[in-house]
Amino acid sequence: MNDGQGRVARAGGRGARRAMRAAPDFEMLPALKRGLPECEPMTPEQVARIDDASMSILEEVGVIFRDDIALADWRRAGARVVGDRVYLDREMVRDLISTIPSGWTYRARNADRSLPFGGRHSIFVPMTGAPFLRDLDDVRRWPTIGDLNMFHKLSHMSPALHSSAHHIVEPMDVKVSHRHLHITYSSMKYSDKTFMGMTTSGKNAEDVMAMCEILFGREVMEETPVTTGNCNGNSPLVWDETMLSAMRAFIRRNQPVLCSPFVLGGANTPASVAPAVAQLNAEALSALAYTQVIRKGAPAIYGHYLSTVSMKSGAPMAGTPEISLMNFMIGQMARFYGVPWRTSNLLGGAKTFDAQAGYESAMTMNAVLHAGANYIWHSAGWNEAGMHCSVAKFVVDAEICAMGYRMAEGPRWDDFEAGLAAVRDIGPGGHYLGHPHTLENFERAFFMPRLFDNNSIEQWQAEGSVEITARALAHARALLRDYEEPKLDAGVDEALRDFIARREREIPAEDALNTEY
Amino acid sequence: MNDGQGRVARAGGRGARRAMRAAPDFEMLPALKRGLPECEPMTPEQVARIDDASMSILEEVGVIFRDDIALADWRRAGARVVGDRVYLDREMVRDLISTIPSGWTYRARNADRSLPFGGRHSIFVPMTGAPFLRDLDDVRRWPTIGDLNMFHKLSHMSPALHSSAHHIVEPMDVKVSHRHLHITYSSMKYSDKTFMGMTTSGKNAEDVMAMCEILFGREVMEETPVTTGNCNGNSPLVWDETMLSAMRAFIRRNQPVLCSPFVLGGANTPASVAPAVAQLNAEALSALAYTQVIRKGAPAIYGHYLSTVSMKSGAPMAGTPEISLMNFMIGQMARFYGVPWRTSNLLGGAKTFDAQAGYESAMTMNAVLHAGANYIWHSAGWNEAGMHCSVAKFVVDAEICAMGYRMAEGPRWDDFEAGLAAVRDIGPGGHYLGHPHTLENFERAFFMPRLFDNNSIEQWQAEGSVEITARALAHARALLRDYEEPKLDAGVDEALRDFIARREREIPAEDALNTEY
Repeated sequence: MNDGQGRVARAGGRGARRAMRAAPDFEMLPALKRGLPECEPMTPEQVARIDDASMSILEEVGVIFRDDIALADWRRAGARVVGDRVYLDREMVRDLISTIPSGWTYRARNADRSLPFGGRHSIFVPMTGAPFLRDLDDVRRWPTIGDLNMFHKLSHMSPALHSSAHHIVEPMDVKVSHRHLHITYSSMKYSDKTFMGMTTSGKNAEDVMAMCEILFGREVMEETPVTTGNCNGNSPLVWDETMLSAMRAFIRRNQPVLCSPFVLGGANTPASVAPAVAQLNAEALSALAYTQVIRKGAPAIYGHYLSTVSMKSGAPMAGTPEISLMNFMIGQMARFYGVPWRTSNLLGGAKTFDAQAGYESAMTMNAVLHAGANYIWHSAGWNEAGMHCSVAKFVVDAEICAMGYRMAEGPRWDDFEAGLAAVRDIGPGGHYLGHPHTLENFERAFFMPRLFDNNSIEQWQAEGSVEITARALAHARALLRDYEEPKLDAGVDEALRDFIARREREIPAEDALNTEY
Repeated sequence: MNDGQGRVARAGGRGARRAMRAAPDFEMLPALKRGLPECEPMTPEQVARIDDASMSILEEVGVIFRDDIALADWRRAGARVVGDRVYLDREMVRDLISTIPSGWTYRARNADRSLPFGGRHSIFVPMTGAPFLRDLDDVRRWPTIGDLNMFHKLSHMSPALHSSAHHIVEPMDVKVSHRHLHITYSSMKYSDKTFMGMTTSGKNAEDVMAMCEILFGREVMEETPVTTGNCNGNSPLVWDETMLSAMRAFIRRNQPVLCSPFVLGGANTPASVAPAVAQLNAEALSALAYTQVIRKGAPAIYGHYLSTVSMKSGAPMAGTPEISLMNFMIGQMARFYGVPWRTSNLLGGAKTFDAQAGYESAMTMNAVLHAGANYIWHSAGWNEAGMHCSVAKFVVDAEICAMGYRMAEGPRWDDFEAGLAAVRDIGPGGHYLGHPHTLENFERAFFMPRLFDNNSIEQWQAEGSVEITARALAHARALLRDYEEPKLDAGVDEALRDFIARREREIPAEDALNTEY
């Protein structure tokens, strides 16, 4: 039984627990099994109304697929195609998405870290795609491959993070056309958790699939997913060739993609929550349906990126109430269709790791947990609207995920009678701190944040008035000192390196563009 | 129709709205009417299990009432009293609490600012009781009565705050024994919203009631509540004379009190969430029942202060997952008994207004909104575990309340068809920013936080790299410049001042103690 803070309760009594507590414990938490009921603001009639509106959009407005292969696929599948616009009947959409599995097991390199996924199971995945970082000295600068390795190590050591993701930061010192190779290698090498696969082009995605085959073997991949790609839509109602070709590379090999319309509320959607959800839902359905045209029965994930747009700057904002509402509603739609869904977590728009970042991030996490999301991406490090990944915020976010995990599990009842017996023991006016039930249960019962300071002001001042950024950076340095690499099998490692070397020779330096967000 | 940001939509089209937008608008939001369903982690059987456990505690363990009048009252009411311990049968408890109204209207000095309360209605009330403040220069120091006046002005100007509360900060330059008089006067004078009444002793509470009579008249008070007191329990299972005598002063005059067990999870409750809730529930029920012994049918509020305790410092922590879970569960219990309930909002344990404060505060707010609390106290300014009220945090929290308000209202559907028409108009690949539907709805549709910076880093740097504390303090200064006092009627003002002067002559300086938390 796991206590939600990375400690696994074992037999052996208090002494064993003390010993365990003394040693740093980086054991990954199992996939979260949510115990809280979801926040569902829509009645069944309102869910049906969104569904009907989305289906009408697909039937009457249509969706542009800027990709000849996809258009040919759709024609073959019986859709009405006019130019690059595809019109999809609701019966066809329902029929296609009906074969998407409602869940599966994500296979990790370390089989003990494989994850059940879908339904009430949720996983936390760090942020990706930052063109800048705030580093171990809180300096904002361009990231290197060394910085990316560092974030993969921190992901590996964070109990509540279930994945090392992929390009947490963009390694700017690696040629764009070779980047996907080195990013994938770093994800595979520095952590044995699940990871994400680059979808920056169809060819890059093929390379990622080839590297997954080296690591896992084709049979394992046919049996169960080993990675996840992200495919953003261009809202309103457009899917482009880059994303669709990457989608094909993944889906053909039974690897799921997040079908993610990219919502800037009021800019590329109507200026209203419910109609924006109807449009997003149509977009997601069109891509989910296409995954089943590519390969019937392949796993796929209902995705989105949700933001509202600042009237002042046009920038995406985080933590606003409409983002929470859209999350709740999209969760209902995904459950209505029986498809697992992805959201974005712990987003901040602040320029530094200040109170704004804290409010925005916690607002986001609460929304996505109450919404019941399955693939909880961008769960550590995101600030400045995704322009940088902050080392300090990364390690704090990882702990916040552990707190959210504990909340979302819901209350325990297994020690209810024992707790009541303590009430009778203590009686009115007593205190519990020395009671055996307290000594036995205190740590397991109550989450103790390591990176929040709960000392008195006098103690805090005596320790140098250290604010959270400095505390978090010291913690990150300590983690990196304790890091132990989960070694790749030597033969696999060599095969991966050989593959990368060969592909670097083959890829003309000029032929790739990094367009993923 | 109010848009959740303090702007009231009126007829008159875009021009009128533009004009409205230009002028600062401090109009109070109506009481929140929650549209989101509550987060209810307990099955009906689990609710019954808590209820049964609490009733068994009341029957078999009993509750200490350290107060002769209360003990005599209980004896007369038919309870079994042994020493200072009162044993309450469940039938008696159920019978007594059945006469507590499920809701009422809070009358404000400005009748337009009176508030429906209970059921799906919730109100936000600022923090109170801070022995320090962080001031307009972010300096931590002892507060003066001038500082308290300032917070009452800021409360008055914050659209999402529904009350000016009472001693937001302790006016240390006013004699302890006279303080309740000047605090109450400040609440009444600088805002025409509802306010709280001091419960620092029975006598002080009588003075507050007398001042309310001067302001509202006895008839109005008999008709409907005009203020709220807080009565903390001493967990486990003790109520003391100070709180009970204040309770009697309020309840006899039809003014509700918050019956608030004070939970330090693991220190004065069992080290486990569900048994802690069972104990707290027993405590709250015993006080709620006593309100009905004092005056049958009087309004009363199920209260609590919830925290878990740092293993390192023993200090109460904020934003931890168990606090969220306890909030969800207590909400279920209060609704089970049909009694409105109070919680604490936007709590921070940080020493400064840093990211820790932001995370903790937003975690708390999300918990209490999903829990469906009615009286949402401590909604602005709380940091350092309540040891200081921060001006910067106060104005940001007030805006966060407006964001929470908007989320808790739930999604709108009134413009659904209009939004869908825009989707058809724009079609795939278009953009919405210039569309008439967008121009008409953008501001109303999406909350625009004023105190969050969503500019690019370049713009932010060009404007001087101002972090949230400095932005918030500048905003607070601007609010205070724009402040207009909602003048008290001259006769009432004179009568209040006369009363205070008389009581200052009567009260021996040594006879009062300030014990409220």
